[in-house]
Amino acid sequence: MKSQRLSQDMVPIVGATSLLAQASSDTRSIPVDSPAFSLVVHGGSGTITRATVTPELEAQYRSAIERALLAGHAVLHAGGSSTDAVVAAIRVFEDDPLFNAGKGAVFTSEGKNELDASIMDGKTHMAGAVSGVTTAKNPIVVARAVMDKSKHVMLASAGADAFVKAQKLEQVDPSYFFTQHRWDQLQSAQKREMVELDFDGKTENSYAQAPQSWEIDHKYGTVGAVALDRDGNLAAGTSTGGLTNKLYGRVGDSPVIGAGTYADNATVAISCTGTGEFFMRGLVAYDVAARMKYSKLSVSDAVDQTIQTELTDKNGRGGLIALDAKGNIKFGFNTEGMYRGYIQNDGKPVAMVYRD
Amino acid sequence: MKSQRLSQDMVPIVGATSLLAQASSDTRSIPVDSPAFSLVVHGGSGTITRATVTPELEAQYRSAIERALLAGHAVLHAGGSSTDAVVAAIRVFEDDPLFNAGKGAVFTSEGKNELDASIMDGKTHMAGAVSGVTTAKNPIVVARAVMDKSKHVMLASAGADAFVKAQKLEQVDPSYFFTQHRWDQLQSAQKREMVELDFDGKTENSYAQAPQSWEIDHKYGTVGAVALDRDGNLAAGTSTGGLTNKLYGRVGDSPVIGAGTYADNATVAISCTGTGEFFMRGLVAYDVAARMKYSKLSVSDAVDQTIQTELTDKNGRGGLIALDAKGNIKFGFNTEGMYRGYIQNDGKPVAMVYRD
Repeated sequence: MKSQRLSQDMVPIVGATSLLAQASSDTRSIPVDSPAFSLVVHGGSGTITRATVTPELEAQYRSAIERALLAGHAVLHAGGSSTDAVVAAIRVFEDDPLFNAGKGAVFTSEGKNELDASIMDGKTHMAGAVSGVTTAKNPIVVARAVMDKSKHVMLASAGADAFVKAQKLEQVDPSYFFTQHRWDQLQSAQKREMVELDFDGKTENSYAQAPQSWEIDHKYGTVGAVALDRDGNLAAGTSTGGLTNKLYGRVGDSPVIGAGTYADNATVAISCTGTGEFFMRGLVAYDVAARMKYSKLSVSDAVDQTIQTELTDKNGRGGLIALDAKGNIKFGFNTEGMYRGYIQNDGKPVAMVYRD
Repeated sequence: MKSQRLSQDMVPIVGATSLLAQASSDTRSIPVDSPAFSLVVHGGSGTITRATVTPELEAQYRSAIERALLAGHAVLHAGGSSTDAVVAAIRVFEDDPLFNAGKGAVFTSEGKNELDASIMDGKTHMAGAVSGVTTAKNPIVVARAVMDKSKHVMLASAGADAFVKAQKLEQVDPSYFFTQHRWDQLQSAQKREMVELDFDGKTENSYAQAPQSWEIDHKYGTVGAVALDRDGNLAAGTSTGGLTNKLYGRVGDSPVIGAGTYADNATVAISCTGTGEFFMRGLVAYDVAARMKYSKLSVSDAVDQTIQTELTDKNGRGGLIALDAKGNIKFGFNTEGMYRGYIQNDGKPVAMVYRD
């Protein structure tokens, strides 16, 4: 435990952690402030260790996590909704080139930035999502507008951009999303994985032959937030640029309600990060809620079991943040680390990076 | 009970049907042939009554349902996989202009045909989906190729069309999907719902002001199939053209694993049809499986409860077909009718249209 702020606050969880023989999980619970309001965020999970992250970079991540937490806390403290708090926190990440969302999004195999985001309101069960949007400064704001202003749950690609324009949401030229380090990552990925680029039909099985290296040893910089407001309402949101060198049109879990994002006042709010295809096949976000609803598990046990069965047992990698309606917080991941943090009534942001 | 073939085979289900005070559901169970293999299909649900369907049209629907059932049965009888049977049955629907899938797909607000499909293998939990594909003759074949030939679960829009080309799947000119009756439906819908067309940003709240009439009194011609093969493996698939006059880029539940389609050998195979946004928010397909897995419900009780809580209680409309690993069949819907049918070992196709 390097995170000094946490040392006094932690209570070890007993029970389902024995399931996690293979999974690396943050198996601590956070005592609940009362009356509870709370915000939990993540900035992605992956091969995040003290060997791979410099102290300077770690400080930048911690600072960004704290700024996101304080932005959301300001909303909750003033009596704002959990939905507003989730949007406020995620906007901080989207505007920061450190994270694979908004300004820091990775490039597709075609050298474009195609952004995904989703949001769900735990009180009404309304939800909104966008996939492959290219002109919105803040995809989470677009997802929220899909939820509030349309009859639909999900808009994709050119249609999503048309919605951005019609709703007069903040637009940017696609060049806004250029960052040198993401561009360099694309060049590097394309050098290593040439065959995955052969997407013009000249090679019949270009997909089948694509190396699977993209599934491992990446950092998945997807961001997300879950919040509980003073009225007892939960909300969850997720935003991402997807996978470096991803094939045009690939939709991951982040914009899929029930896979990357889910919120229900009766159970839990969830935001995920990791190898998206595993989260989609396992309906990871909704599976946690279903285990709480139908098996009557605690949020901590439900998260441990979902991570074990839907990720670890199947060689999927990643994690999630969870917050139940009583304010109980749970981090679950089977990677070496996860950029994450939480803030409660007291307004003190707590940022964490490594597993322990 | 008009469907004469069924009269001897039906056993009333007792129990959870009392939950369905408001829901119109097919609450009969089908005795299981042994050793079981089985195929269940649907061609959409909606305002399907003897007053709205002519005898001639009913005969056409019954004939198409029987042809789809026989195509899938041929696969299963020969020892083929449930996945192959699902594809074979859905292809029959996609090639028939009666159904809102493939050749009979409805038009978007821009006068295009954008097709969605998904498939899931209950043994491996692998899944594939396409959204907004415009050049594939059979979207279910593309979904299956995404599952088998790519590392991804879902491909959208132009990227999905590029995948069709790269994989050398059967391509057609988009004009292939033109049918006069769907075009006339678009003209009629646009006359009634002008504001929903105002999508160029001139009217700020064009989405918010759009009439909600598209949610009711439509026929939802989405098609789907679920199958159990001789090896005891389940599979599920769904294919659709979406909503007439839908706004460009809208993604419904049909291509979303867990919303419109789900399969798991340990529980159930599901394919849905109806007001897609409700199925997405309620994760309807996966919710049935979760109730079976975590609440230990029968497929019949699980379907009844999901339809009640995720559709009827929330004013969503539609239904689903369900098949468990023992061959138990369940139809669940809260609309007046559902084009549907099943076939078992004996090879006798049973087609149904109305509620009773």
